[in-house]
Amino acid sequence: MAGATRSLGCRRLLGTHLKNLLHTKHCVLFDCDGVIWNGDKAVAGAPEVVSLLKKRGKSVFFVTNNCTRSRDSYLSKFSRLGFCDVVQSDVVSSAYCSAIYLRDMAKVQGKVYVIGSDGVYTELYEAGVPVVGREPDVPGATIYDCPLDSDVKAVLVGYDDKLNFLKLAKACCYLRDPNCLFLATDGDPWHPRPRGRVSPGSGSLAAALETAAERKATVIGKPSRFMFQCIVSRFGVDPARTLMVGDRLETDVLFGRSCGVDTVLALTGVSTLQQALGYRDSTDPQGAACVPDYVVDTVADFLPALDEER
Amino acid sequence: MAGATRSLGCRRLLGTHLKNLLHTKHCVLFDCDGVIWNGDKAVAGAPEVVSLLKKRGKSVFFVTNNCTRSRDSYLSKFSRLGFCDVVQSDVVSSAYCSAIYLRDMAKVQGKVYVIGSDGVYTELYEAGVPVVGREPDVPGATIYDCPLDSDVKAVLVGYDDKLNFLKLAKACCYLRDPNCLFLATDGDPWHPRPRGRVSPGSGSLAAALETAAERKATVIGKPSRFMFQCIVSRFGVDPARTLMVGDRLETDVLFGRSCGVDTVLALTGVSTLQQALGYRDSTDPQGAACVPDYVVDTVADFLPALDEER
Repeated sequence: MAGATRSLGCRRLLGTHLKNLLHTKHCVLFDCDGVIWNGDKAVAGAPEVVSLLKKRGKSVFFVTNNCTRSRDSYLSKFSRLGFCDVVQSDVVSSAYCSAIYLRDMAKVQGKVYVIGSDGVYTELYEAGVPVVGREPDVPGATIYDCPLDSDVKAVLVGYDDKLNFLKLAKACCYLRDPNCLFLATDGDPWHPRPRGRVSPGSGSLAAALETAAERKATVIGKPSRFMFQCIVSRFGVDPARTLMVGDRLETDVLFGRSCGVDTVLALTGVSTLQQALGYRDSTDPQGAACVPDYVVDTVADFLPALDEER
Repeated sequence: MAGATRSLGCRRLLGTHLKNLLHTKHCVLFDCDGVIWNGDKAVAGAPEVVSLLKKRGKSVFFVTNNCTRSRDSYLSKFSRLGFCDVVQSDVVSSAYCSAIYLRDMAKVQGKVYVIGSDGVYTELYEAGVPVVGREPDVPGATIYDCPLDSDVKAVLVGYDDKLNFLKLAKACCYLRDPNCLFLATDGDPWHPRPRGRVSPGSGSLAAALETAAERKATVIGKPSRFMFQCIVSRFGVDPARTLMVGDRLETDVLFGRSCGVDTVLALTGVSTLQQALGYRDSTDPQGAACVPDYVVDTVADFLPALDEER
């Protein structure tokens, strides 16, 4: 029976089937990079899909592990790429959720040392969480002589293209205190860049710290359920009536399945159909958690079902 | 019986016992940091111990995961700290062995992209292995626009206090090619620094790349056996007649045991007696491989046995 259930994964979403499925869902969660846009280019049809879903009365959330932008900065990007009816509360980023976690869950009493980008600093600032890490170091400063802040009670690591050795070393020093919290915005191992290039993701930088500190980070982003809990606690969505659309099996699909949400793999990003079928046909129980219920070539495949649903 | 054997671990080396043990050994391998010196200060008595061992006709090797210095640079340090009879071939560093591995084992046909310190660059240069990675980047260069060298056939990562995001990203790009070799000088997770500070080790930087590249690095340094093979192939030492003295259970002791060599934990560095006893009394078979045969407070404990052995 388990086998029979599994073999139902990776179904192509088409025609009436897709229309019926969308009819049963009140809420759609989209990953961003690789799903509704690639870099600075919207996936063709994605703005229309979002707009039509909203017109049909669906709740739409953008659940992204990309922690480089604040929600406000995301809004500018949505608008620039033609997504005209997105509002700030639709955007649920790992930077925003990290700030919420530190303030409301961990209730951190002190400062947070951040390795990260503008998005993380802005969200922590807006949440009222005191931050250190952004001040430029004295040229030539080393871990032997740089100042450390004794009020740091948490380390948060995320994507930081200004990472350097001293930042890592400072984080290691803070993490020597077993009471210092250790968070990662997300565990994304790498990101595709133009012309076949790649860059390390937050998960890569977190792994460096986890190894050096001999501790595991609490990961806020997908596949951890915390981002979904943030949505549920604020908007009370029902997992059974929710659909998660993503491009990474080990992140988006695993996230959706952990949250009890039906999942759609869009083939416009990192993971391939072959990889999805590989998980489906493997006997590894961990792999089974990465099998999407459905597959579409692109979110634009939703258009006919939404156009007809009048 | 296995239990009985294990319970013999962590024996204090004293008096006649120590003298008899040294009598049976023809070769002594020392770790450096935390064993014969701490930072820039020799452990009291260590230079005399090395000198007396050599006078008694023992082969002495310094087997260090510290890849920041070339062997020549190590010789200066030995001399400066009072170790006057050490010669270049006594020094077996992870930087040197990485160069030997790339040239003689992997027979790399192309350039090596290095994240590392002077020691690694110098040893690769002296071994005749072509290297890239040291050239300064154009200010403001990113992984989107920086040049990459299509002749890179291996990535070698080691301790690099000038690490930055672009270096990591370049390494990730090179490692996209499954035929590109992936080596780490060593897996040391962190290093103690003065005033209770710490810094990430090669193992931490390697973990960042392993996560981003979704591949495991071949680790050259201890506990991998390769450094011992380098010594054996050149000097034909007999493991049964060899003693390994180190300060890290998971590195030095595990290395010694993997090589079939008796091990001594010196309590002048990272690992504590409590940790050693913890491994000894645990039922974890992996932990058993980290139990030292013997424990000394410091290598100076060897002095009486050597003084008397005339």
